[in-house]
Amino acid sequence: MQRKSFGSMTCPIARGLDRVGEWWSILILRDAFAGMTRFDEFRTSLGIAPGMLAKRLAALVEAELLTRERYSDKPPRDEYRLTVRGLDFRPVLIAMLTWGNRHFAPEGATVMIVDSVTRQPVEPVLVDRASGRRLAAPDFELAAGPAASDAVRRRLASGGRLLAGDAP
Amino acid sequence: MQRKSFGSMTCPIARGLDRVGEWWSILILRDAFAGMTRFDEFRTSLGIAPGMLAKRLAALVEAELLTRERYSDKPPRDEYRLTVRGLDFRPVLIAMLTWGNRHFAPEGATVMIVDSVTRQPVEPVLVDRASGRRLAAPDFELAAGPAASDAVRRRLASGGRLLAGDAP
Repeated sequence: MQRKSFGSMTCPIARGLDRVGEWWSILILRDAFAGMTRFDEFRTSLGIAPGMLAKRLAALVEAELLTRERYSDKPPRDEYRLTVRGLDFRPVLIAMLTWGNRHFAPEGATVMIVDSVTRQPVEPVLVDRASGRRLAAPDFELAAGPAASDAVRRRLASGGRLLAGDAP
Repeated sequence: MQRKSFGSMTCPIARGLDRVGEWWSILILRDAFAGMTRFDEFRTSLGIAPGMLAKRLAALVEAELLTRERYSDKPPRDEYRLTVRGLDFRPVLIAMLTWGNRHFAPEGATVMIVDSVTRQPVEPVLVDRASGRRLAAPDFELAAGPAASDAVRRRLASGGRLLAGDAP
């Protein structure tokens, strides 16, 4: 099934999704954050077909989330490393990890974020960097940016609850 | 192209991805947060084929991210609303919005999170809910949970930088 490109949409979520590519790409980024750099490491970790992995890595390099550098000429071998843009994807992965743990780990968590000293699991929340306040209404709201399209303005005008406070 | 199910993987990121389904699902959730509830609203907003939309909505109901309720019998019409699990997906969308704005908005932001009073754009960061400290090394680290598989333990043992501090 061919998916439509979201790159032409102006929504930052749609554009971000377009650049990451698809699920495999997110798991490749996860593994890159875990310290993996080599084709065989990703392949073993993901159980992914080599052709698909090569395609996904090339797309991540093209989108400038990873760099590719040759570390051996005979045989030819490359290393993949996170760029600044790739490193910046970190909060998305942490948010996804938190959500997965909360809702899809009936037998208990597999990976947790813990306090290094107390070893207690922590609960990640999003705050405003400057003031430390929770990113929730009524303190914060979504607003149209300078490049907002009519469609984006309509979506914003209809209200919404992306910042409507804590989930019940 | 058929993608493999990630549900059998124990990683919470992989499981989360499996439940969300694919890109369309994330954009449907975005629109649900924007206040949309009806088939035609989603269809107009997304420019998605009706068959695909019906399939994605059914998957989101099945995964318990949305509920479906009949609001008209003649003609039969349903409303879709976010569940607690769906509402909990909020931080993933906010993190994705932030990343998209930072890296894929060359002409300026389309949607921003702003302080309701000052109207200034804010920068979302993840912190530990209890202490308010930034979720970064060395204060915090990833640890194996009670249900960690060998593969997860190996990935954790290899170090990694998911919590390695701010992106440079």
